[in-house]
Amino acid sequence: MDTLVALAAMDMAAVDALIIDRMQSNVPVIPLLAEHIVSAGGKRLRPLLTVAAARAAKGEIENPVKLAAAVEFIHTATLLHDDVVDGSERRRGKVAAHLIWGSATSVLVGDFLFARSFELMVETGEMRALGILARASAVIAEGEVLQLTRAHDLNLDQATYLKIISAKTAELFAAAAEAGAVGAGADAEATAALRAYGLNLGLAFQLADDALDYGGTSEALGKNAGDDFREGKVTLPLLLAVARTKGREDAFWDRTINKGERSEDDFRRARELIIGTGSVSGTLDAAGDYADLAKAALRILPDTDWRDALEKLADFAVSRVA
Amino acid sequence: MDTLVALAAMDMAAVDALIIDRMQSNVPVIPLLAEHIVSAGGKRLRPLLTVAAARAAKGEIENPVKLAAAVEFIHTATLLHDDVVDGSERRRGKVAAHLIWGSATSVLVGDFLFARSFELMVETGEMRALGILARASAVIAEGEVLQLTRAHDLNLDQATYLKIISAKTAELFAAAAEAGAVGAGADAEATAALRAYGLNLGLAFQLADDALDYGGTSEALGKNAGDDFREGKVTLPLLLAVARTKGREDAFWDRTINKGERSEDDFRRARELIIGTGSVSGTLDAAGDYADLAKAALRILPDTDWRDALEKLADFAVSRVA
Repeated sequence: MDTLVALAAMDMAAVDALIIDRMQSNVPVIPLLAEHIVSAGGKRLRPLLTVAAARAAKGEIENPVKLAAAVEFIHTATLLHDDVVDGSERRRGKVAAHLIWGSATSVLVGDFLFARSFELMVETGEMRALGILARASAVIAEGEVLQLTRAHDLNLDQATYLKIISAKTAELFAAAAEAGAVGAGADAEATAALRAYGLNLGLAFQLADDALDYGGTSEALGKNAGDDFREGKVTLPLLLAVARTKGREDAFWDRTINKGERSEDDFRRARELIIGTGSVSGTLDAAGDYADLAKAALRILPDTDWRDALEKLADFAVSRVA
Repeated sequence: MDTLVALAAMDMAAVDALIIDRMQSNVPVIPLLAEHIVSAGGKRLRPLLTVAAARAAKGEIENPVKLAAAVEFIHTATLLHDDVVDGSERRRGKVAAHLIWGSATSVLVGDFLFARSFELMVETGEMRALGILARASAVIAEGEVLQLTRAHDLNLDQATYLKIISAKTAELFAAAAEAGAVGAGADAEATAALRAYGLNLGLAFQLADDALDYGGTSEALGKNAGDDFREGKVTLPLLLAVARTKGREDAFWDRTINKGERSEDDFRRARELIIGTGSVSGTLDAAGDYADLAKAALRILPDTDWRDALEKLADFAVSRVA
């Protein structure tokens, strides 16, 4: 990841300046709240993908920089709404915005950033990029609702779980890369390759995140480890562990997930069962497979430092779980 | 209003069909919740404006129909989020969606409809209309936040109150009419006139709504009368009454609005004071002034049935308070 970050430093400085500029408003609480979540930074992975896709396709960078800022706004809006929806307490290593300014303001500032993202896209004049990111936004919302309605359901099959993370996470990775390629004027083949890269990278990242929630530390996550369990969110590590402890722990899972009776002791026990049955490493293996697919998609692109850095990013997606 | 509704019946049938088509999703709760609020209908005023603006400008109707559906989606998304933010219990004569499906789902389905509205706009290929509606969406969110932060503040001046209703209501009326004109290929003068009509009509409607909340019935409103008072929302009728009872009722207003201690008896007393001091009729007078401005803006348009119907709509905005 460091390689790509170094390579994209100048482009990302332009993206950051644009983000700061466009989150301004005459209503004081809007830039205050936006600052809180934007300046916490996170990895800025999605706009990085947009910029890197444009560079890897050896194209124009002016519009991709705007599209990258738009992508980050969509992502930030989604985070603000998610944290309200999930009642999460921490985000990007800080107290979640809704706990400081209230849920109402968080919802509305999310709406504001979402609208601003479309204003930025309009400036590029790139109707195709607009279509890609509008569609992605709808798919993300669908994924979130699907997760919400199926979250506490131990009968969730792995295919539905993949559908959820594909929609709520991987779709924006895919759209970020695709929009960068389109904004750069890339040909159809390169655009499709970069979209495929983004989609598989997104799946790898989300699977690794879900593994980290049981196998990692709060510091590595930037939010509380164990949040998925506390919220009764069914993810792959849990699904694997439930299957691998069938007949032995059914009552425990039924009580903690289906019935929603969960203590911190229960989390520790769940964590032991999930790690003990190899379900964290099993999830990381799946993440590794998607990282390989992401790298394979890049092969048709010209051999540049950017392509190399994108390959390394796919490896990082999985290896950050030390 | 009936004149315009009759005139636009065929166009609005096309808009409705598009709305139903585009709110579908493989995630079952999305069309269910969307149906609940969309089928309640409301007045469909904003998409009606888009279609009528296109017709009054004697232009193409295909793109305006799509833009009209997009406008209604933006409006519906805003209502869903507003009801969560305000904790409102009723909407369009029905139980508010968040009380049936929960706040989380309401927020996310709002996001979904917002994204779908941009997908519809992309289909038209009308970048200018996209810019108009993206900007309006940002302004609406700003207006909502401004209202949220100043809602319980009796020191709110009338200028700030006007800024709030201009942003949270009139901007979408203005953008709806302007987008219709742009989508119809209207010239710059007609487009500006239709935008001005929409803006002033929106102000007239909102002022009349705020008057109705004290001077009307729940049936006429489609939501509970008195909701503004119950939420401690400072609107023009209240501001006028506070000014007109200065020295006599300061303690009452301070307790009920600034301190937020409100009973149903307090609402009845506030209502008496507001009506008794002529503050409802004062608000309606202001609404009438904006309705006149709306009608004046139409003068440069060709003399058609559509222009006549838009004039009548401006009168209706104020007269619906029987």
